[in-house]
Amino acid sequence: MRFGEKVSVDIFGASHSEQLDVILKGITKGHAIDFDGILQFMARRAPGKDPYSTPRLEKDFPIVTSGIENGITTGADIVAYIKNENKRSTDYSSIRYTPRPGHADYAAYLKYGKDYDPTGGGSFSGRMTAPLCFAGAVCIQILAESGVEISAKPIMIGGVWDDDVAMKERILQAKAKGDSVGGIVQCTVRGFKGGIGGPMWDGIESKISSAMFGIPAVKGIQFGSGFDGAAMTGSENNDPFIFKDGKIQTETNNCGGILGGISTGGDIVFTVAFKPTPSISAPQSSIDMQTCEQVKISVPGRHDPCVVLRAVPCVEAACAIALLDMLYI
Amino acid sequence: MRFGEKVSVDIFGASHSEQLDVILKGITKGHAIDFDGILQFMARRAPGKDPYSTPRLEKDFPIVTSGIENGITTGADIVAYIKNENKRSTDYSSIRYTPRPGHADYAAYLKYGKDYDPTGGGSFSGRMTAPLCFAGAVCIQILAESGVEISAKPIMIGGVWDDDVAMKERILQAKAKGDSVGGIVQCTVRGFKGGIGGPMWDGIESKISSAMFGIPAVKGIQFGSGFDGAAMTGSENNDPFIFKDGKIQTETNNCGGILGGISTGGDIVFTVAFKPTPSISAPQSSIDMQTCEQVKISVPGRHDPCVVLRAVPCVEAACAIALLDMLYI
Amino acid sequence: MRFGEKVSVDIFGASHSEQLDVILKGITKGHAIDFDGILQFMARRAPGKDPYSTPRLEKDFPIVTSGIENGITTGADIVAYIKNENKRSTDYSSIRYTPRPGHADYAAYLKYGKDYDPTGGGSFSGRMTAPLCFAGAVCIQILAESGVEISAKPIMIGGVWDDDVAMKERILQAKAKGDSVGGIVQCTVRGFKGGIGGPMWDGIESKISSAMFGIPAVKGIQFGSGFDGAAMTGSENNDPFIFKDGKIQTETNNCGGILGGISTGGDIVFTVAFKPTPSISAPQSSIDMQTCEQVKISVPGRHDPCVVLRAVPCVEAACAIALLDMLYI
Amino acid sequence: MRFGEKVSVDIFGASHSEQLDVILKGITKGHAIDFDGILQFMARRAPGKDPYSTPRLEKDFPIVTSGIENGITTGADIVAYIKNENKRSTDYSSIRYTPRPGHADYAAYLKYGKDYDPTGGGSFSGRMTAPLCFAGAVCIQILAESGVEISAKPIMIGGVWDDDVAMKERILQAKAKGDSVGGIVQCTVRGFKGGIGGPMWDGIESKISSAMFGIPAVKGIQFGSGFDGAAMTGSENNDPFIFKDGKIQTETNNCGGILGGISTGGDIVFTVAFKPTPSISAPQSSIDMQTCEQVKISVPGRHDPCVVLRAVPCVEAACAIALLDMLYI
Repeated sequence: MRFGEKVSVDIFGASHSEQLDVILKGITKGHAIDFDGILQFMARRAPGKDPYSTPRLEKDFPIVTSGIENGITTGADIVAYIKNENKRSTDYSSIRYTPRPGHADYAAYLKYGKDYDPTGGGSFSGRMTAPLCFAGAVCIQILAESGVEISAKPIMIGGVWDDDVAMKERILQAKAKGDSVGGIVQCTVRGFKGGIGGPMWDGIESKISSAMFGIPAVKGIQFGSGFDGAAMTGSENNDPFIFKDGKIQTETNNCGGILGGISTGGDIVFTVAFKPTPSISAPQSSIDMQTCEQVKISVPGRHDPCVVLRAVPCVEAACAIALLDMLYI
Repeated sequence: MRFGEKVSVDIFGASHSEQLDVILKGITKGHAIDFDGILQFMARRAPGKDPYSTPRLEKDFPIVTSGIENGITTGADIVAYIKNENKRSTDYSSIRYTPRPGHADYAAYLKYGKDYDPTGGGSFSGRMTAPLCFAGAVCIQILAESGVEISAKPIMIGGVWDDDVAMKERILQAKAKGDSVGGIVQCTVRGFKGGIGGPMWDGIESKISSAMFGIPAVKGIQFGSGFDGAAMTGSENNDPFIFKDGKIQTETNNCGGILGGISTGGDIVFTVAFKPTPSISAPQSSIDMQTCEQVKISVPGRHDPCVVLRAVPCVEAACAIALLDMLYI
Repeated sequence: MRFGEKVSVDIFGASHSEQLDVILKGITKGHAIDFDGILQFMARRAPGKDPYSTPRLEKDFPIVTSGIENGITTGADIVAYIKNENKRSTDYSSIRYTPRPGHADYAAYLKYGKDYDPTGGGSFSGRMTAPLCFAGAVCIQILAESGVEISAKPIMIGGVWDDDVAMKERILQAKAKGDSVGGIVQCTVRGFKGGIGGPMWDGIESKISSAMFGIPAVKGIQFGSGFDGAAMTGSENNDPFIFKDGKIQTETNNCGGILGGISTGGDIVFTVAFKPTPSISAPQSSIDMQTCEQVKISVPGRHDPCVVLRAVPCVEAACAIALLDMLYI
Repeated sequence: MRFGEKVSVDIFGASHSEQLDVILKGITKGHAIDFDGILQFMARRAPGKDPYSTPRLEKDFPIVTSGIENGITTGADIVAYIKNENKRSTDYSSIRYTPRPGHADYAAYLKYGKDYDPTGGGSFSGRMTAPLCFAGAVCIQILAESGVEISAKPIMIGGVWDDDVAMKERILQAKAKGDSVGGIVQCTVRGFKGGIGGPMWDGIESKISSAMFGIPAVKGIQFGSGFDGAAMTGSENNDPFIFKDGKIQTETNNCGGILGGISTGGDIVFTVAFKPTPSISAPQSSIDMQTCEQVKISVPGRHDPCVVLRAVPCVEAACAIALLDMLYI
């Protein structure tokens, strides 16, 4: 599980292993890293703080073993691990051979064979985003040095748009029914310099999109006007150039800050679609893979009725790694 | 301009250079390649055949210099070139310093500096998809050996959905006004075996999405129910498992044939958003980069009122390269 | 610090950090790993066992956090760490700005600047070969499954050839004078199948040589007749083909089991030159980098009078990683 | 057939294909390239000029299709091809199934199977070094901008050391007998700045050695005192530091300009062993692979009695690519 070229992150382990290891390569030396800032960033991802996520507590404390000394990056690869303190809390044996709809179980069974144990989601678990957020937090701090600011927020949850309170109520409503909801996260990057990227696969969209689909539950991404823009005419969708505040910019931002794969210097804007969490307590149809008979299952364990709120820092983290990689290439 | 790991494509050159070179690496030896099939596939991309695309004629004839002998792959990297016979036909000097809205001009200027010459779009040109289609055609033939079938089609053009005739009329209507339209292409992959892919960035969505954003004008992608699915509940979006025709499958396909980044054995389905071609003859606002004054420009040359029809084989080609790479990794 | 393509090893940390981390990528699932065998292999590298190496004790116990479960490889990357228990035992402050002749100090100072602290050798330390031996031991066990046997031995130490007792005496003699000696290690690989490798940089020699020069103190390598063969004629150096024991083989092995970069199926044989350990207690000329004045220094700490004996398993380890990578490419 | 990371060269084709393609990646834009200089450099490799090499004439004229415009690098990958004008001149059918001793034939047969045709050496041919020299010539010109000078020379041929006239006579003597000789090439790099490289596999020796073994017929390499140094004591082999001409340097250069894998700023010096050309007209023992019977063969065609003279620019070329890659990493 690796992302990136010049700046890259490797994540090792699974939800049921002793620890998760993470390697962040390519960070140059001399950057001051605020460890408390990393912890605060990672806390945004951790569950158990409010009724909108699973009550499972995760204490995400990264131990850095290489690459940062006395709060300064050394130029060596940054190596850290996060202990899994809460593993195997639920008994999944009842579903061992009955794949959960919407989960990786069946596909993973095809890949890994009958030894595959879905307990805790293995390396498909949302737990894997803890080391992602660690690596992303470091990249965010380095991007901030040159004025780059990445901020994501949910803009739709379970069909409810833009209203924070209503979106949270929608989550509680789904939770009360033992159901779950998905949503859309919008991410805006300010201060990223123009002229970064390149044609075809050297483009920013290729890089950011592959970063985003590494986050569990992501099923779509669009830049700027995206799918809506596809229904427009050129005269509507093209962003006119204007001269304002002493610099050339676009009047509108249907391009999402990217033209020809290259940053324009305007805000980079994209939205990411998260499917509803597949774990729901309502009974669902599945197949017993040993007998090939139809069965009804109910997913055990404490579920996240909605991962979208916790996914927000993950989007920022993945975006930061992708953009820092673009800058360093 | 490179895509892929174990199977990879490199494309060299630009719309104004003598030729475009393409390297397709990682193809094992012993595959029969039908050269006429390649030409027919590439012809679907070539413009000048009908009133829906630019009247510019492109004779895309690839010359293979390595990797295929007597119609059989040798196991060595496949090297080919395509001559650019039609280059520099238009005089772009009037727009040299006035970036065309929606085009790469301004962003490329930021990247490459004042020497950057937008003539013909350079390496941002749709012309670059000719070698992409060559490489994709080879991969499609190899995938077909094991029963994989990739077929894409436009499902929306300029706001008109699903009706082929109406979509073509929409193009002519835009063309008549000197305007352009975008659209959405849906791609379906049948026969791709389950169990391919992996968690996080090892997933199929990461791979396909980065392949697609390498095609000029792509601004969004979604798998299965995608953005619509983000508004559903888990009980609606989860695909129940059933046993049918002697095998386990999903009753619906909101997951687009991919769960946990891994193929389920069902159809892989995704849709790709193309922005309207930025080249329109209607006057648009731009800035003279030398004087920073507001100007009106009209884009010279023979334009594509809509690239969506010609983009269909490009989507298939990029998809084939991505999936063959996933199979070989 | 990374080696390999399909099978690769990354090593993180330094002699003075809390721990050394090692990642071994590309190992397929289902291989039984004998952990005791790994410990025994690593013990051959560890110092402090006899009068021929430094009396410094290193307890090299690798903790595996991913990739091996219940003694079987899982197919995930293998992650392990080794604690540094014995770090910063010596006071190097006296030589902080006076580079030790033959050591990395001066070159590292040019690279890392004045913050570079030579204490314990940092990531240039022979200590870094502990994780190398861990990774190599895993690869050796996997190669052994298909009958590949790698065995290295010293053939010259301090000018004494081939006689084990005399070579050890040569070490003690140098040690008594506060001096050090180098030597040559010969490595023989039996049972490696023919037909692996390829022309130019796809060849086995390129792969093995770059692996070997990753071991500290290596300054030369030759395959088969090597430098001696360069003085022969073609009629002397060419290995005639014979048919023996039911198979085609070469009568002699001047090619070292490799022709055209490809294994012949015969023994792969190469020799590696190790320079004498630069750390000697005799006074040496250096320059105070702050004043640029000539000084005499004596290197503090407990030295290895000869690293060649301990380097033998390192040669085997690096060879195993290189060859397993060749097999998997 | 690929070498390098940030700066890399890919070579495609074989001695019997229409052309050889070469891609040089990673060269930044704005470097002036002297095309005549490239041709002169490549001419040093081309055979047929004197009695010391094969009378076969090779007109090596590279056609650049991307990456250099008006004599200046554009920042895009440099793509070129060289036509093979002289292919398949000899009838190799007599040796199709009787591998030539010392050649790649038998190993290639094991790798590629019975379809392998040894005619002209395929991609094992010395012909493949023509595109290597093209790529190297570009890198040499770029390194020269910052004062780096690479110069190689033969120091031993067929057992004769250092005397140019005697070495050439040794070649003619072997030629007269239908035999061949090998030799040793020494390469010296002046002006390469200190502080480049790194520990373990990040070191310069790993990089240069893997570059060199990509040249056909190379069987050994040593840096500085190399194998001789392995027989010295530390007090003899360590290079004392002195302050001279206003800078810190080493008094001797047993380290070959590299300590801890990092350049010291002194001359980088290494020697490369070339085996004698395996093609000799004297009869040799081989096995008919179809009948497994012992046969005597005589290698057809016009042979190089010694490749060492022509290999000199190849050593410089490979060294230049390796060092430019080290600088850019």
